[in-house]
Amino acid sequence: MLILGIDPGTAITGYGLIRAERNRLAPIDYGTLRTRAGEDTAVRLSVLYSQLSALIKTTAPDVVAVEQLFFNTNVTTALAVGQARGVILLAVAQAGIQLAEYTPLQVKQTITGNGRASKQQVGFMIKALLNLENVPRPDDVSDALAIAVCHAHLGVTMARISQHAEPMA
Amino acid sequence: MLILGIDPGTAITGYGLIRAERNRLAPIDYGTLRTRAGEDTAVRLSVLYSQLSALIKTTAPDVVAVEQLFFNTNVTTALAVGQARGVILLAVAQAGIQLAEYTPLQVKQTITGNGRASKQQVGFMIKALLNLENVPRPDDVSDALAIAVCHAHLGVTMARISQHAEPMA
Repeated sequence: MLILGIDPGTAITGYGLIRAERNRLAPIDYGTLRTRAGEDTAVRLSVLYSQLSALIKTTAPDVVAVEQLFFNTNVTTALAVGQARGVILLAVAQAGIQLAEYTPLQVKQTITGNGRASKQQVGFMIKALLNLENVPRPDDVSDALAIAVCHAHLGVTMARISQHAEPMA
Repeated sequence: MLILGIDPGTAITGYGLIRAERNRLAPIDYGTLRTRAGEDTAVRLSVLYSQLSALIKTTAPDVVAVEQLFFNTNVTTALAVGQARGVILLAVAQAGIQLAEYTPLQVKQTITGNGRASKQQVGFMIKALLNLENVPRPDDVSDALAIAVCHAHLGVTMARISQHAEPMA
C-alpha cells in the first residue's frame, strides 16, 4: 500500500510517500511543496493545489493521510493552515483517493510512544523506522512522513477492527 | 461593474451579486451555497468549490469580494472557515478574477457607520441601500451583499486614490 502523508501549510507543505507491506515500511519519496512569500494568498493556494494535484497524479497513492487541526495554536495560524488544508482536501477528493486524518497527538503517540514528543524525537524515530541516513529536513518533511507511518500503523489496525466488527450477513 | 460578495462557510456560504454604477447600486442575484451536514469535509469542500466555480462562470463578476479573517472567534471555527475560504480563493484565482478582501469591521463601518453594528443593523441597511422588500435571509446572504456593497464604496475609492498616487511617467 502506498501512503502519502501531508503536513499542510501555505508557505511550506511537507509530503512523504511510503510503501507499507505487512510490517515493512519503505520511504519512496519526500520533500516540500513551496509557494512564494510575495504572492497573493489566492495565487499561493492555487500553486499549492496544482503542485499537490500533480504529485497525487504522478505518485498514485492508495491513501492520503493529512494532519488534523491542532487546538494549541492561535486563530490567525488556524485560518492560514485551514485555507491550505481546504485546497489539499479538495485535491484529494477530486482525485477520488481515500483520505485519513490524524491529530498531532495520535501521530506522536504512534511514532514515539509519547503524545507530547518533541519534533526532534519524531524526526529521530522517522529516521530509524524508515532506515534513513539523516533526519529529513525541514520539520515539515519529517512530520509528513510521520503522518504516513502513523496511518501505516493505525489505519491498518482500524481497518482490521472495523472488518471484525462487521455484522455477519 | 458587477461585484460578487461572498461570506464563507462549510455548511452555508452566502453570496450576493450587485451592479454598481456611479452612485447607483442594484441587486442582481443572491442566495446560499449549501453542503450536506452528513458528508465528509473533503466532499463538502469539493461541492462548495464546484458550486462557486459554476456561479462565477454564469454570473461573470468583475470582482469577487470575500470576508477576511475575524479574530474574535475560536480556533476550531477559524480552521473550518479557513478551509472553506481556501477553496473559495482557489476558485476565484483559477477564474482569473480580481479578489478584494474586507474585514467584518470594514464592512460594518462602511454599511452602517458603526464597526460594531449588529447583524440586524447590517441587514436593515442592506434592505434600504438595495431597495429590497425584505431583509435577505439567512444572515449569510445579508452579509455577502454587505461585502459587495462595501467593495462598491471602498474599492472604487481605493482605486481612485491609487490612481492619483501613481507617479507621473
